[in-house]
Amino acid sequence: MTAPQLTDVHPAWLPPEAFRALGSRRTVVQGTGLLVETVRQEVADAAARYGGSLRQPTTGADEPTEPDDLVLALTTGATVPAGAAAVLAELAAQTGQLGADGFALARRAGVTVVLADAAPGLLYGLFEVVRRGEAAFGAGFPVERHRPAMRLRMLNHWDNVTVDPVMGQVERGYSGGSIFWRDGALTPELSRVRAYGRLLAASGVNAVTVNNVNVHAVEARLLTDRLGDVAAIADELRPYGIRVHLSITFAAPVTLGGLPTADPLDEHVRAWWAKTTRQVYDTIPDFGGFVVKADSEGQPGPFGYGRSHADGANVLAEAVAPFGGAVHWRAFVYNHRQDWRDRSTDRARAAYDHFAPLDGQFRDNVILQVKYGPIDFQVREPISPVIAAMPATRLAVELQVTQEYTGQQRHVCYLGPLWSEVLGFGPWGADGPSVADVAAGRTADVAGPPVGGGGLAAVSSVGDDPFWTGHPLAQANLYAFGRFAWNPRLDPLAILDEWIDLTFVPTATGDPDRLRRTLHAIMDDSWRTYERYTAPLGVGFMVRPGHHYGPDVDGYEYTPWGTYHFADRDGVGVDRTRATGTGFTGQYPAPWSQVYESLDQCPDELLLFFHHVPYGHVLHSGSTVIQHIYDTHFAGVEQVTESRRRWAEIVDLVDPAVAARVGERLDEQVRSATEWRDQLNTYFFRKSGVPDAHGRRIH
Amino acid sequence: MTAPQLTDVHPAWLPPEAFRALGSRRTVVQGTGLLVETVRQEVADAAARYGGSLRQPTTGADEPTEPDDLVLALTTGATVPAGAAAVLAELAAQTGQLGADGFALARRAGVTVVLADAAPGLLYGLFEVVRRGEAAFGAGFPVERHRPAMRLRMLNHWDNVTVDPVMGQVERGYSGGSIFWRDGALTPELSRVRAYGRLLAASGVNAVTVNNVNVHAVEARLLTDRLGDVAAIADELRPYGIRVHLSITFAAPVTLGGLPTADPLDEHVRAWWAKTTRQVYDTIPDFGGFVVKADSEGQPGPFGYGRSHADGANVLAEAVAPFGGAVHWRAFVYNHRQDWRDRSTDRARAAYDHFAPLDGQFRDNVILQVKYGPIDFQVREPISPVIAAMPATRLAVELQVTQEYTGQQRHVCYLGPLWSEVLGFGPWGADGPSVADVAAGRTADVAGPPVGGGGLAAVSSVGDDPFWTGHPLAQANLYAFGRFAWNPRLDPLAILDEWIDLTFVPTATGDPDRLRRTLHAIMDDSWRTYERYTAPLGVGFMVRPGHHYGPDVDGYEYTPWGTYHFADRDGVGVDRTRATGTGFTGQYPAPWSQVYESLDQCPDELLLFFHHVPYGHVLHSGSTVIQHIYDTHFAGVEQVTESRRRWAEIVDLVDPAVAARVGERLDEQVRSATEWRDQLNTYFFRKSGVPDAHGRRIH
Repeated sequence: MTAPQLTDVHPAWLPPEAFRALGSRRTVVQGTGLLVETVRQEVADAAARYGGSLRQPTTGADEPTEPDDLVLALTTGATVPAGAAAVLAELAAQTGQLGADGFALARRAGVTVVLADAAPGLLYGLFEVVRRGEAAFGAGFPVERHRPAMRLRMLNHWDNVTVDPVMGQVERGYSGGSIFWRDGALTPELSRVRAYGRLLAASGVNAVTVNNVNVHAVEARLLTDRLGDVAAIADELRPYGIRVHLSITFAAPVTLGGLPTADPLDEHVRAWWAKTTRQVYDTIPDFGGFVVKADSEGQPGPFGYGRSHADGANVLAEAVAPFGGAVHWRAFVYNHRQDWRDRSTDRARAAYDHFAPLDGQFRDNVILQVKYGPIDFQVREPISPVIAAMPATRLAVELQVTQEYTGQQRHVCYLGPLWSEVLGFGPWGADGPSVADVAAGRTADVAGPPVGGGGLAAVSSVGDDPFWTGHPLAQANLYAFGRFAWNPRLDPLAILDEWIDLTFVPTATGDPDRLRRTLHAIMDDSWRTYERYTAPLGVGFMVRPGHHYGPDVDGYEYTPWGTYHFADRDGVGVDRTRATGTGFTGQYPAPWSQVYESLDQCPDELLLFFHHVPYGHVLHSGSTVIQHIYDTHFAGVEQVTESRRRWAEIVDLVDPAVAARVGERLDEQVRSATEWRDQLNTYFFRKSGVPDAHGRRIH
Repeated sequence: MTAPQLTDVHPAWLPPEAFRALGSRRTVVQGTGLLVETVRQEVADAAARYGGSLRQPTTGADEPTEPDDLVLALTTGATVPAGAAAVLAELAAQTGQLGADGFALARRAGVTVVLADAAPGLLYGLFEVVRRGEAAFGAGFPVERHRPAMRLRMLNHWDNVTVDPVMGQVERGYSGGSIFWRDGALTPELSRVRAYGRLLAASGVNAVTVNNVNVHAVEARLLTDRLGDVAAIADELRPYGIRVHLSITFAAPVTLGGLPTADPLDEHVRAWWAKTTRQVYDTIPDFGGFVVKADSEGQPGPFGYGRSHADGANVLAEAVAPFGGAVHWRAFVYNHRQDWRDRSTDRARAAYDHFAPLDGQFRDNVILQVKYGPIDFQVREPISPVIAAMPATRLAVELQVTQEYTGQQRHVCYLGPLWSEVLGFGPWGADGPSVADVAAGRTADVAGPPVGGGGLAAVSSVGDDPFWTGHPLAQANLYAFGRFAWNPRLDPLAILDEWIDLTFVPTATGDPDRLRRTLHAIMDDSWRTYERYTAPLGVGFMVRPGHHYGPDVDGYEYTPWGTYHFADRDGVGVDRTRATGTGFTGQYPAPWSQVYESLDQCPDELLLFFHHVPYGHVLHSGSTVIQHIYDTHFAGVEQVTESRRRWAEIVDLVDPAVAARVGERLDEQVRSATEWRDQLNTYFFRKSGVPDAHGRRIH
């Protein structure tokens, strides 16, 4: 197998030049199996390009005449190459397994050594060596043990096999069509799928769903008579340690199986799922499992049969259990036909109200997949209280790499800082376990026995666009997701550094330091910049209905979607307190149940999520709410304008196609940010009548 | 030719039972030609059903043994049947022609006589006899002369040959698919087209366009290689005196002709239009002409070549002139990419600004087709000032039978009273010519030589729905349009009476008076009821963007469409005065230029179209603006609820299918009106802070 060379697709964070340090060394790879061959081929390709060599390991204790620079070896081999022996001994003296995906990395006596207990670890170790570049071959360093925090690091593709005339092919996709499907069938460009798998492996991702969670008629059949297409994708991704999962419809026993019911407690339904699942595993033995959006936004689910979501998830879990599969059951269940006049219903409460009572009722191979916030991937939300409410359930935290509400890959919006905040947040306070700990399965110190983690999942941003992600700089979000899933404690700016050093620096046509500095200046704070010029203070949902791009302050205010801001001439925000509001604050454990309840203690950035306040309310920052709105909106546009100016200064340092695409998108970002600023400022000025303290122009 | 008998389509205002009086008489039809044969067949069908007879006219002075009850005869025949001779003599003693479409009607000595100079008039006379029922055969009456006020009485179909995945097949169509086109080709149900023509003839319409004014790629080819389809439709409509017209794209010389330009002053372009038009008339000798939407909402036009709209229209007019054809050139030209921040641009001004300077520059077979209001078929607008601004141009006034902004045929909204107001309005004051006079060509007393009228046009509401118009009661609008085009001075409630007496009374299954009373109670004031619960005081455009159904007060407020209300915490409305606003009032002649300019004189119902006023502004009615909003919205819902109650009382009197369809739609109307009431009231309460004087619930 050769790593795919795509000529018309951007190489993202794996340009050939990123392999220069590795490719100029003498390397030996020891071990057997599919993924070891992937490692070997990567080394061979790099060596062929940069003058290094790949030595075939000899049997017994024979050693080469020249010493190796790099040894990649499985610890399970009968022997390891001589250069790695001392590291192996040192590793053996330590406690703890490396696990399937882990690896050890060291450099001593002029040899860089990667050891892994299993082939996936060796592959991840290889990409770590690539990431470090020359630093991997410089000064020696003792044994580092690397293990992913999350066992499951999954990207969900909301791809449809067929193209919807309104939504396009990829729901909430902003990067062209699907990379898996084209014109109603499997893509003919399977080499692109393979290249995608390689990029994902280099970021740490190990699981992918190949179809939309809203499962339409054609896509439902991927489970049965179109399973061969899924198997073809699995074949492309397998060499990179990535398992495929499938989004399925809960109604499948009826729509595909011809049964009169999909009642999860019906014996025929159970048998149908068991039989169907067995056929899946006969075809794809390492199939990952199912992802299910049930009783949500029109999708069928167990409620239709008077059953609980535990009943619904468990029948599927039972079917995949014999094969080691998992069921990702999404907690995104709420009433999307709410009456805006009904102030007693609060969409933010819905997931907790539905699922918290079910804690402990799910089989151990059910993973409840919870969006990080209680609403829907807004630029600022509190953490979902479900994350702290289900100690006896495996939880996966769901992020959104596709920038549905954060600029749709037309705006620069590096989400690393958001995800870092989310993952590092302590639902029980700063000293307790973090959100990442819950996803990793480390909540035992709070309640109940350890249940194992559900990992991290995210909606992919990838399409058949030549830059993968529409906006070239949005590749950073895809990369960062994998890195956070591997280690949620990473500094988001350090991840950005890695990404820049892989993607841009090796191919820079001039001063790489200037390039690096400027990209940081544009990207580091871009999420907060986006927050500044869009919906303020955690209020959420001021986007155009339907496509969700651009501002429309009242766009969702009188709709059935449960997303309201209640702005009137006196104030704005949603009262979610126990004292006078919807009581949502009561879904949090201490200290947040108190902090969010309290107008004094609630953090500024979430104020309007939890409280309805007058425009004159003074924030902790010292500004009033209305002046904060004006100030942040003016500042946000200035920052975007500054980013565009900075980009223009470095276009000579990057590939012209990248320069052109980023330049176009920055133009659009300035236009759109200006529109956000003007609509928001005008809307709130018309409502409040309060002039800007600095006399700036409000239309 | 037999009149089509459609078994699965509602007969609208021509149920067989409406022909009872005619069908039970002895009738003679004298004359020859296609339309005379249509008359003869109508009589024969009715006589066969109801026991009457159709006598073949004898040659010479031979007379039947029994006298005729009804004589229908052309005045151009060598002789007329004896029963009509006295009437013919009386008619000859009067001055003035009947014209092609006119007829004379009289009853003397027990014989009812219809005389016409040409076959179309005989057909219209027949339908007048049908309309009168037994009254046509009762007491004698002297000669009545009937001539249509408008020579052109046209329905525009915004039908596409292919189905758009978002807009459906008929743009702004709410009655299913097209009756002309199906699945990308000519409909196989040509008998339905023929039945449609028959209904239109009975209402007075004599021209139809068969495709959308937004001309897409497939539809463009109706002009050339798909012309045969148009000819097939023309064949079906011709027996009813209806000529087909075609919407064409101004870019046709490029897109169809392969020329490098569509510049109207280019000789090759002229030649292409001439040649192409000749081919059209070779195929369809009575082809009516072209309808053109140019330089509007993305359609191509002469601006693209630096030419005026007169240049653009004239090149087409020159091509159709040798064949007696006309060009309907739409005046709906405005900047649909306006910046909402730009208060100096006013969409209301656009048509006048574009076209008034061109008065006198159009060829005499160009008809400038002007929407009745300056914006876009809102429930309440002032009259377009273009109507008073172009005395040397033939103007057609465009109405909208399809209820795009008036409930989309889910709401009962009888538009007769609106159209009556529009057509009767005096742009130069109550004593001057009316809008209808301008459309009929009678503006000579104001300025310049008589130019001939452009007639009345309207966007059709018809689709392949079994009830033709979606809502069965919306048939009344279709009927009323034809009647107003024939005689704009008709009382809208008298037209409603005609429609009820044709459509419902002949098939009533019980007390027809109760049925008539209730339908009047539901329909008479339904337009004003609709106005009450939707956008207030002429402010317009508070609909959901895109589909235009249901409320979204700010939906268009920050868009490029030029449709704003400028509501803030203090007031609402658009300042279009010369003193402080956009100056739009200056486009009107006296007295309206003064009346609309003056806050004191401006009629309440147009206040917010012309002025931005505080919520506390006191109307002529004595109410404040804000209290008016509350009161009308509560009242409107009450009236709709009352209509639903009334309908329930008469369902036993009508066909069950009609009863069910109307019942469903009334349920939806109550729901939708309630939504309008609550959104509008809440929106304005949140903005104004003024409580309802009567303490009713505002959410």
